[in-house]
Amino acid sequence: MALALKGLKADDISIDLLKGRQYTDEYLAVNPQGVVPALVLDDGGAPLFQSLAILEYLEETRAEPPLLPKDARGRARVRGLSLIAAADGHPLITPRIRNYLEKEMKQDEASRNRWLGHWTLRALEAIEGHLAKEKETGRFCHGNTPTMADICLASQVIGATAYFNCDTKTVPTAMRIYNTCMDMEAFAAAHPLKQPGARPH
Amino acid sequence: MALALKGLKADDISIDLLKGRQYTDEYLAVNPQGVVPALVLDDGGAPLFQSLAILEYLEETRAEPPLLPKDARGRARVRGLSLIAAADGHPLITPRIRNYLEKEMKQDEASRNRWLGHWTLRALEAIEGHLAKEKETGRFCHGNTPTMADICLASQVIGATAYFNCDTKTVPTAMRIYNTCMDMEAFAAAHPLKQPGARPH
Repeated sequence: MALALKGLKADDISIDLLKGRQYTDEYLAVNPQGVVPALVLDDGGAPLFQSLAILEYLEETRAEPPLLPKDARGRARVRGLSLIAAADGHPLITPRIRNYLEKEMKQDEASRNRWLGHWTLRALEAIEGHLAKEKETGRFCHGNTPTMADICLASQVIGATAYFNCDTKTVPTAMRIYNTCMDMEAFAAAHPLKQPGARPH
Repeated sequence: MALALKGLKADDISIDLLKGRQYTDEYLAVNPQGVVPALVLDDGGAPLFQSLAILEYLEETRAEPPLLPKDARGRARVRGLSLIAAADGHPLITPRIRNYLEKEMKQDEASRNRWLGHWTLRALEAIEGHLAKEKETGRFCHGNTPTMADICLASQVIGATAYFNCDTKTVPTAMRIYNTCMDMEAFAAAHPLKQPGARPH
């Protein structure tokens, strides 16, 4: 989404997480943590890692259009909203967590699905708690142009709706903004179910 | 740690998470997500939320000493290391997760403790994978002065050693840097066991 918003091109290389391809020697040489995404630049340097660090790098090296507001308080708000999704939501639904719940804690599929839906919706509700009451909220999470927070929000809503069957009636502002995002090609084209090899959860 | 490194003063107000004090109306008015920390500024504006967003705000409004390097690649590396701890490590050990594992998944204390230690060490090992092989590593995670990454690393090591009884022999570089951090008053004074009302896990 960020690459498209900033008019940057990159070759996509899909790593099939459910098949464990993130743990091949080839991928571990790119990202020793064995997680996605990684961004390999054409300057020959080390691949960039961690989604929000990559977003900040793109913001610092390609200013337009900005994905952060100019004022420090606004930047803190956008980063805070982004982190609710990226730290308190997303890491809980990754394959490594699902595997642990299954293998180490012997949780059946129904229990694992409740976990996935629960934490995905909890993060969205935490974001909604800000969006619904704060004056900075506009057509998008912060004002009337998309920011990092919308990228993180969209990813989180996609998890809730396309994968984990959450009831999103408690997050109307988040859903309204998500639908605004999805009217933009940069967001719509990046939907995970449109990626090569995609399959529903 | 960041406030002390930058020579800023703040009044500490402890919120007893294990007693559920993050869910009082009084605290939810400060942070609607019901998590810590929050930073209330004296300008009367909304409290700042999410640790890394607060760190970035402090960095943007109080430049010295810098907690991020100057070059975009270096900043991406420091932010990436920080996020391994703040996103892939820390959220997994919070009270809300422990409560879910106990109440919803009926995991006993031994199982919950294995979870806490496992994910804490996994995040540290992921950081170690970068620190041990990358030339940017110095006395600290990135060069010879502390950055955001060291703040996140120290917090993660404290979890591993003071709370979750992890065997840290797989993360020697992280431990070497942690010990360097703890020689500094800004880090040592912020150790959670030195805070008012602190108690071991």
